[in-house]
Amino acid sequence: MTFEIKYRDAAGRICKYATKHGTITTPNLMPVINPNKLIISPKEMIKLFGTEIVITNSYIINGDEKLRKKALEEGIHKLLEFKGPIMTDSGTFQSYVYDNVNIDPLEIIEFQRDIGSDIGTILDVFGKPDQTKEEAKQGIKETISRAKKSIKLKGNMALACTIQGSIYPDLRTKCAHEISKIGSDFFPIGGVVPLMENQNYHMLLNIILSSKKGLNPSKPVHLFGAGHPMIFPVAVALGCDFFDSAAYAKYANDKRFLFSEGTEKLDDLTELPCSCPICSKYTLLELKKLDEKEKIREIAKHNLYISFTEIKKIRNAIRNGSLWELVERRANSNPYLLDALKVLEIGKNKLWLEQFEPVRKINALFYTGNHTIHRPLIYRCHNRLLNRYSALFKETVIFPDGKKPYFRFYYKQIQDIFRKNNEINILIDAKIGPVPLELDEMYPYAQSIFPKITDDETGKHVTKILEKFIKNKKIICWIGEKTLDKIKSAKSKTYNFDKIRISAISDIQFGKGAGKELLKGKLKIVKSKKTGKIRNIYLNNKHILSMRASDGMFSLKMNGASILHKIFKFPKLRVIVNKDATSFIKEGKSVFAKFVKDCDPELRPFDECLIVNEKDSLLAIGRCILNREEMLSFDYGVAVKTREHS
Amino acid sequence: MTFEIKYRDAAGRICKYATKHGTITTPNLMPVINPNKLIISPKEMIKLFGTEIVITNSYIINGDEKLRKKALEEGIHKLLEFKGPIMTDSGTFQSYVYDNVNIDPLEIIEFQRDIGSDIGTILDVFGKPDQTKEEAKQGIKETISRAKKSIKLKGNMALACTIQGSIYPDLRTKCAHEISKIGSDFFPIGGVVPLMENQNYHMLLNIILSSKKGLNPSKPVHLFGAGHPMIFPVAVALGCDFFDSAAYAKYANDKRFLFSEGTEKLDDLTELPCSCPICSKYTLLELKKLDEKEKIREIAKHNLYISFTEIKKIRNAIRNGSLWELVERRANSNPYLLDALKVLEIGKNKLWLEQFEPVRKINALFYTGNHTIHRPLIYRCHNRLLNRYSALFKETVIFPDGKKPYFRFYYKQIQDIFRKNNEINILIDAKIGPVPLELDEMYPYAQSIFPKITDDETGKHVTKILEKFIKNKKIICWIGEKTLDKIKSAKSKTYNFDKIRISAISDIQFGKGAGKELLKGKLKIVKSKKTGKIRNIYLNNKHILSMRASDGMFSLKMNGASILHKIFKFPKLRVIVNKDATSFIKEGKSVFAKFVKDCDPELRPFDECLIVNEKDSLLAIGRCILNREEMLSFDYGVAVKTREHS
Repeated sequence: MTFEIKYRDAAGRICKYATKHGTITTPNLMPVINPNKLIISPKEMIKLFGTEIVITNSYIINGDEKLRKKALEEGIHKLLEFKGPIMTDSGTFQSYVYDNVNIDPLEIIEFQRDIGSDIGTILDVFGKPDQTKEEAKQGIKETISRAKKSIKLKGNMALACTIQGSIYPDLRTKCAHEISKIGSDFFPIGGVVPLMENQNYHMLLNIILSSKKGLNPSKPVHLFGAGHPMIFPVAVALGCDFFDSAAYAKYANDKRFLFSEGTEKLDDLTELPCSCPICSKYTLLELKKLDEKEKIREIAKHNLYISFTEIKKIRNAIRNGSLWELVERRANSNPYLLDALKVLEIGKNKLWLEQFEPVRKINALFYTGNHTIHRPLIYRCHNRLLNRYSALFKETVIFPDGKKPYFRFYYKQIQDIFRKNNEINILIDAKIGPVPLELDEMYPYAQSIFPKITDDETGKHVTKILEKFIKNKKIICWIGEKTLDKIKSAKSKTYNFDKIRISAISDIQFGKGAGKELLKGKLKIVKSKKTGKIRNIYLNNKHILSMRASDGMFSLKMNGASILHKIFKFPKLRVIVNKDATSFIKEGKSVFAKFVKDCDPELRPFDECLIVNEKDSLLAIGRCILNREEMLSFDYGVAVKTREHS
Repeated sequence: MTFEIKYRDAAGRICKYATKHGTITTPNLMPVINPNKLIISPKEMIKLFGTEIVITNSYIINGDEKLRKKALEEGIHKLLEFKGPIMTDSGTFQSYVYDNVNIDPLEIIEFQRDIGSDIGTILDVFGKPDQTKEEAKQGIKETISRAKKSIKLKGNMALACTIQGSIYPDLRTKCAHEISKIGSDFFPIGGVVPLMENQNYHMLLNIILSSKKGLNPSKPVHLFGAGHPMIFPVAVALGCDFFDSAAYAKYANDKRFLFSEGTEKLDDLTELPCSCPICSKYTLLELKKLDEKEKIREIAKHNLYISFTEIKKIRNAIRNGSLWELVERRANSNPYLLDALKVLEIGKNKLWLEQFEPVRKINALFYTGNHTIHRPLIYRCHNRLLNRYSALFKETVIFPDGKKPYFRFYYKQIQDIFRKNNEINILIDAKIGPVPLELDEMYPYAQSIFPKITDDETGKHVTKILEKFIKNKKIICWIGEKTLDKIKSAKSKTYNFDKIRISAISDIQFGKGAGKELLKGKLKIVKSKKTGKIRNIYLNNKHILSMRASDGMFSLKMNGASILHKIFKFPKLRVIVNKDATSFIKEGKSVFAKFVKDCDPELRPFDECLIVNEKDSLLAIGRCILNREEMLSFDYGVAVKTREHS
């Protein structure tokens, strides 16, 4: 079973997952099929919702003589009349809910294997949230021990080994780490149902994060038992790939409608506030008048329409880089979920999330509230600014936020300043944080939409960053034309703002000092005739950089790469490939993850990189698709998209 | 044409609107039908979306010889093949967009009347946002003058007289006031299209508010030209009843999908992120492959599914009291809309909004972000607390926020305090604001869901209210058991917390001093055996009050009303009905608006009230449905729901 990243945003990803019964796209949702209580048949699910994968419970099938026999004789796919991949559960949840459940942990693996399950699940020990740490420790010990034994029996079935550890982050990470080591194919995160029921999303996010931190990133992660669509976006943003839904049926049985923003009881509604085919087909009264069974069936369909639509929305959001916007919008609908986002504002979690965050996106960044400023992308922007940027001059004039791009908005004022003194930095105190004028066209500074008035937390946070940024520097705040009087006259003859701009962007993108070295020599800057913006940069008649109009960032050319290769010490900016890949890369082919030997740990998805061999010879340049940890873990898929080769 | 309020929330309302062609429910949406460019027929709209009313442009029909003739001969309903109410526009917008449009303002009224339009529109002067105030003044002068002349020609057609005034709030209010005086039947708010196009929602809300402030509340208000569903919730919350949508077709022509949270271009999508019948019927690829005309038609259908669903969501939200939640959620999706909500935080706007806000709701109040604390309901809570509540004792112990109800959460600590000193007030410093212990079961204190950590603005705002509330009082902050040492011993023998509770709730609900007077005599308190909560209160063996379990507020009984009638001077708490209604009310019938002579200006929707005749004899008690201004304006519908009569 292969698993490879195709698109990504936040710590979420769109992957191709190949199973014995076909390849599917993640994130994906598996409706739970109970063959004893079939509300909607798998066949109908394919037709209505485009269902690609389902999950059923092997414990229930095993416990029913007729089903058991049929499953063993004809296979689970025949039994369910579903040709796509089928995951089976083991009965862990039943052991948790009912006391008198007796399942042999190894027999149930053999049974799942024998009925032809695509993904079987170990019988793990459910870690209840009210366990003591010692109990939880014993639980994961037993879970890991069972996982080890189960793997020997799995045959050609993929085996899902569940992460437990109750509410103890260190135990979750430990369990995840152990389970990763033994070669599990699939990682359910278990024991979360009671947290969902109590709307303890704060703990839920903690558990996802601590589990993910210990997991091998190259295998699918399944948030087991979290079937409410409200939770899907944030779970995907933290790296979950699969969800299962028993909720569609459970909520329908209680006459409750799932929505991406919450739940509505049929009795509380006066109209059907939804456009799905079910809610468009009936009026509320008509729906209420249906016989009980049909009513439940129709509400269950509504629930699956909504659940699958949320998955589609998430995949769209990943592709166009707006997953955090979706996460924050959903959180704004529920105070408990809003509380939960605070978990993502903790330093160590931001640090972890930042590794997966692409450096640029197709869409502008939208502010939605006081969580926005803590997004990993903005966190990185601030860090790169503090660590990679160096101001050229001693004095800085600070302008308040204005329209974008700032250079145009403050054109007159800037010209007035430069006429008097061009040895001065211009800085914008923007809602997103400090923006040196020379970065004003770069993503996300130009491509972000903040309200005129942001919230106080954002203001405070940004002020802190600004204070760090201007510490020990001479500052003049622009308060109108009279500010000019405060500026001393000073003129540099070699002053060239384009050069300053190119240098600063290079530093931010490639590392401190990159700009200075890239511009040593005879420079030629080609600008767009239409927009006047920088397009191509030549050094000593060689093309070293191109600037993308969409995000104001550089594409590296081989000539530019050679310079960076010289100035930055190994392994900085490098992806190191083993010798088997060298010839392919010299043909311009992309770097597949399995050929990556090592990688600069500071490279992030969509960063420009130097592709080198083990002897550090520069082979090509490209755009990272994966970060270091992923490159070293994944066996499938592209690690670096090669753009040019030597 | 009658118009009456059936349900309400925020300053929004669900009304029955009777036209010549049937009665419809507002808020409602009129798709724009262009008979020359029919994308979806009105007939199909009824079937697919349950469309109840449409709008078409009489200027276009008048300008096309064939359409003109048919409309005059067979009527507009035959022409459009639509039996429900039809509104017609006059060509104002065309005059604004194109220079060479020549329409006679009175001929176009006659034409609309003659083709049988249900609601015709005057040819008003479009107030552009970049007009000077003088130009805008001239514009409304001409608009009002045309309205006056048009009314004489309207026949039995309802006439919509548009409110203009560009971006000048005082001119909007003035225009609205003048237009109300001359007997218009329907109030479009005009000139907003350019604001929608520039996403200047801040100004849009200002304009809606200033227009509404001048309008007679008993007629439908139509936000003319605002067809994006994202804007519907906030517009309804401010009192708009109708929207028209040309957007469904205009956006479809550009291959853009409307969503309640914004817009998506077909080309930016990789999957259809929606569950409507169109998006459920096709894959993205299939939709893209449709021929151009069919593709536009299908996207237009999607756009109308979404638009009508948003209207249904709004109506549901009004019925269950969650309209502000919906408004805030939508605003969180768009930074410009978020900016716009700041308009509603301005004192005079809160003051205006508060008049329409029901005093209690079916659902709990949900926090969604830093606007929540400015909701009119919370604003009123704080005001009633500051103005109507009197603390019993000199000293107050303040507890931090905790679980609800607070009495149970802090039971042990409270008992410890009371054992030592029961002449002490207990106050909770809650996220929603200060909550005296005796109000802890009352709406919204017990029925509100805030996150554990609220935002800084909310914190600051609440602190300000708390400081006002405890000003000049002796305060002890509870910081654990050692706080007990700071409390001096003092015991009152007559102390009875139930009595304190009843008294405080009475003061908040009915007015300062109500509690003291209501409890003078032999008191009997009946509690629920199941919950232990107060249910019924008897004074001298007479039933004076019942407490609702759902919101912890009192229903007034006739015996209680008599006491309040004695202690509160006319017109406090009264709705005064004219003599024609007296006999009906004595039969227990509800008070219709047209029989109301006057009313206590402090009564709010769902407040308990005393129904009296012009001589101030107490006839009955009831629950207000309308506020004073509405009672005096509406000709139709219930003003007070009578509960008991003498």
